[in-house]
Amino acid sequence: MRIALAQINPVVGDISGNEQLIANSIADARAAGAALVCLPELALTGYPPEDLLLKEHVLSDAAAALGRIAAQVEGIVAIVGYPERADAVYNSAAVLADGRVCGSYRKNHLPNYGVFDEHRYFKAGLRGALIELNGALIGLSICEDIWSSGAPESDEAAAGASLIVNLSASPFQAGKGTAREEMLAARAREYGVAVAFCGQVGGQDELVFDGHSLVVAAGGEILARAPQFEQWLLTCEVPLQTTAFSSDEPPNVDLIGSFTTSAPSDDTSLDHMIARVESDDEAVYAALVLGTRDYADKNGFERAVLGLSGGVDSALVACIARDALGADRVTCVTMPSQYSSEGTFSDALALAAALGTELLELPIGELMDGYAELLAEPFAGREPDLTEENLQARIRGNILMALSNKFGWLVLTTGNKSEMAVGYSTLYGDSAGGFAVIKDLPKLLVYRLCELRNRRSDSPIPESILTRAPSAELRPDQADQDSLPPYEILDPLLEGYVERDLGAEQLVAEGFDADTVEFVIGLVDRAEYKRRQQPPGIKVTGKAFGRDRRMPITNRYHG
Amino acid sequence: MRIALAQINPVVGDISGNEQLIANSIADARAAGAALVCLPELALTGYPPEDLLLKEHVLSDAAAALGRIAAQVEGIVAIVGYPERADAVYNSAAVLADGRVCGSYRKNHLPNYGVFDEHRYFKAGLRGALIELNGALIGLSICEDIWSSGAPESDEAAAGASLIVNLSASPFQAGKGTAREEMLAARAREYGVAVAFCGQVGGQDELVFDGHSLVVAAGGEILARAPQFEQWLLTCEVPLQTTAFSSDEPPNVDLIGSFTTSAPSDDTSLDHMIARVESDDEAVYAALVLGTRDYADKNGFERAVLGLSGGVDSALVACIARDALGADRVTCVTMPSQYSSEGTFSDALALAAALGTELLELPIGELMDGYAELLAEPFAGREPDLTEENLQARIRGNILMALSNKFGWLVLTTGNKSEMAVGYSTLYGDSAGGFAVIKDLPKLLVYRLCELRNRRSDSPIPESILTRAPSAELRPDQADQDSLPPYEILDPLLEGYVERDLGAEQLVAEGFDADTVEFVIGLVDRAEYKRRQQPPGIKVTGKAFGRDRRMPITNRYHG
Repeated sequence: MRIALAQINPVVGDISGNEQLIANSIADARAAGAALVCLPELALTGYPPEDLLLKEHVLSDAAAALGRIAAQVEGIVAIVGYPERADAVYNSAAVLADGRVCGSYRKNHLPNYGVFDEHRYFKAGLRGALIELNGALIGLSICEDIWSSGAPESDEAAAGASLIVNLSASPFQAGKGTAREEMLAARAREYGVAVAFCGQVGGQDELVFDGHSLVVAAGGEILARAPQFEQWLLTCEVPLQTTAFSSDEPPNVDLIGSFTTSAPSDDTSLDHMIARVESDDEAVYAALVLGTRDYADKNGFERAVLGLSGGVDSALVACIARDALGADRVTCVTMPSQYSSEGTFSDALALAAALGTELLELPIGELMDGYAELLAEPFAGREPDLTEENLQARIRGNILMALSNKFGWLVLTTGNKSEMAVGYSTLYGDSAGGFAVIKDLPKLLVYRLCELRNRRSDSPIPESILTRAPSAELRPDQADQDSLPPYEILDPLLEGYVERDLGAEQLVAEGFDADTVEFVIGLVDRAEYKRRQQPPGIKVTGKAFGRDRRMPITNRYHG
Repeated sequence: MRIALAQINPVVGDISGNEQLIANSIADARAAGAALVCLPELALTGYPPEDLLLKEHVLSDAAAALGRIAAQVEGIVAIVGYPERADAVYNSAAVLADGRVCGSYRKNHLPNYGVFDEHRYFKAGLRGALIELNGALIGLSICEDIWSSGAPESDEAAAGASLIVNLSASPFQAGKGTAREEMLAARAREYGVAVAFCGQVGGQDELVFDGHSLVVAAGGEILARAPQFEQWLLTCEVPLQTTAFSSDEPPNVDLIGSFTTSAPSDDTSLDHMIARVESDDEAVYAALVLGTRDYADKNGFERAVLGLSGGVDSALVACIARDALGADRVTCVTMPSQYSSEGTFSDALALAAALGTELLELPIGELMDGYAELLAEPFAGREPDLTEENLQARIRGNILMALSNKFGWLVLTTGNKSEMAVGYSTLYGDSAGGFAVIKDLPKLLVYRLCELRNRRSDSPIPESILTRAPSAELRPDQADQDSLPPYEILDPLLEGYVERDLGAEQLVAEGFDADTVEFVIGLVDRAEYKRRQQPPGIKVTGKAFGRDRRMPITNRYHG
């Protein structure tokens, strides 16, 4: 049987736009001779629609759109993810055939951890579902359902399914694609069925979806794989068995309907792609590019602006912005103060020139003097301290925001996860902006991605940016490592504390120095109020700051 | 039987501090002759502990603290809320007696809507639980359990309970206290049992808990009620029946143990308070005072600072800050520009004088000129617009944050819910700070609370602040109502759109003008990115911006 997986990039809330995208995908799949086409989880609303799902009119709009799509479906069966309004709201996969909605499978396993809040919106289905198509039985499932062994897939396989399809919206994180492939192959072998996984692609606020749709044969081998990070209609011939459905056992599966389609076309030019899987670092870079592009485009920004300090973080963000939007949609701004070195300034110029972006130069010395004068009286008798450093960062933030306000540009912030963790950033200063591109990248990963990007032919990042000791340049001769452990220690320590939720004792048991552990944990805990006010940015690790990690600000735990 | 309800104010994460508070409450209750003392839901960690619950060492620390508390419990039975680590994590009520933890009831109904994420952390219990105390059977329940009719309370009553206790952490919102009393009275009558409700009190980031602990007789009448918004040990004599527990039916209830205590002391001087219930507006004001005080004190701030514009919002926040912290812990700052009127300036001075707070005067005109000069080249050929207005607000934000950085003060922001909804505030400007005291107050409620506060003897708010047309004073002769519908229309429209999740059609059906509806919905939707970066503030309505309302930023729904 020829099947198609429509790896689409819907826009959250754009029900009419998504309707069109879905209808076009179904038409394309039919034209390609497919008997079955799958779309991603909640394709009609985009994923995650969050509290849009609490609005009854959103649910009725989605139902109306589903009906319009169904009316055009002839000669093919389409499985489309949508929010189903019944006695409660379900995360459902509708079966569209013969011009109508023939029934739905309701997601059984609702994730409510990490970035997921599905119990907030949905009631869990309790039964599996099958369709009979050209004599073969096909089981339906949605995302989380298939991540654990058991029902509904085991029931569907026991009822005779020789293919299980899974509609997904599975957020990207480094390494997850490979793990998911292995999981799907294990399920295929366990049940002796082929598995077709159709994933959403695209950026949505904090999340990027990498697609990575694929078909696995019953023996576990990959039959087809779509490229990651782009829309794709993946088609594949899957050998299926003809089996009769027995409604007696197991009892926990419904047969939604029996359908026949005409034989597929003889067009053998169909792609049967097995795209290569990107390496972890390549995939992270691609995720950042797609996430930035989609945030800008889906929110209607013509251009992005960022401050170039001459450091490694803003260098990486400039590369990502250029690769996401094109050089003619990016403005870089250099805002030197008396503490900026000649080296960082000339590096910023060289980088902007290599990337071909606009560069504005707006020195902030006089504004620093202005604030110092105004605050001289209340600050009388006090030494300069972090206050004055923060003022510099805030002047720069004000300038970028003024450019944003005047010209409608999106401000990209340049802070990384290591500094976000320990609070080494200025609220309303360097963290001021609309999108925090690399907020989930530990500093060492920032370096790795710079090197990866520089291996492309244009090598835009000057070597001196990569070799200079990291510094915020907010006071003379400042360096990150004056007040922080080396990143080779800090980053794994943060990974243990933030991503694995280890406590001080456990971290010391893993070999970290006890004083360093206590110092770093204290920094992380005290910076929660800053993180609560950060712009969204792209999750690439197992646990990102944002909806993935929900810590109280008022918190006296120091265990 | 004499029972005690310990309405305590724990600090989230402060397990050792909470342990002491709980142990002291139990000792006080025993000294008061109570046979039973109840503490609030998750009293050991404070509520809500959020992702602290994902850390295994937090759970083991809580278990150790519970064991230490239990070891001291003699001559009384204590019911204490804590996170129970077993095969999964449960939101449990431990029964402490005879120097040990005798067992636990596990919360059956886990809320996962609004501000609640309990499915993220807990597995639901499936059974009711009873204790036998001096021959009477007492049923246990936790918060959400009792909000709907049925198990576990119905099972506990059927098994012979004549008292049901409910440990709660029920976030304040206007009007909820009365609704809760009515619900508890209805349950008491339905099951023919007395009901004792023990609530947490105190502020925790976005939430305030008002306590409002009470005892309802089986006939529905109030036997005792603690004052709202303060710690209180409420004691009460409750008439109970002696009944034998039958383990045969119903099957879904466990008997945790049978206990006897000596007869209570003859001290009849015990309070048997029935505190009055505050009016809705009085309760909101008290909630804002408590929430502000607890945010400052629990996070270690000695002093708060806010900008006084001469408008009604900052006037109200100044009153709340003074009432929460005392005049000697509040600094007001006036930051006039060329657009500030003489009237607002003198009103700000008069208000600060009436409140007795410190006042700093820091005019921002020269800094405005400095930014204009720096940005003259990139802005060449462009008219002044919102950009320049935002710069004024950001200069003021920078000044307040500089005072915060230099002196360690908490910056209170002064934006209300109406302007937060439509985005009439400047990100990193007037919204820059640590705590947004009135972010959940619609503008009309701001006026009502000012009038309420002025009815107290000091009447601090000058009448001219209350009668002047609202204006941001960011350009000449600006007034809110130039670009917004009157607040008498805007506030109810926002209530329908934000709190009740109505769509445009439904709002028009309720009588709002269609163009106004479309205009306002557009403003609300486009301001989501600003709200995502706001400081936390106190929830007082049915749906606050923050964890209560989780909207995507990237969202093309315009239905």
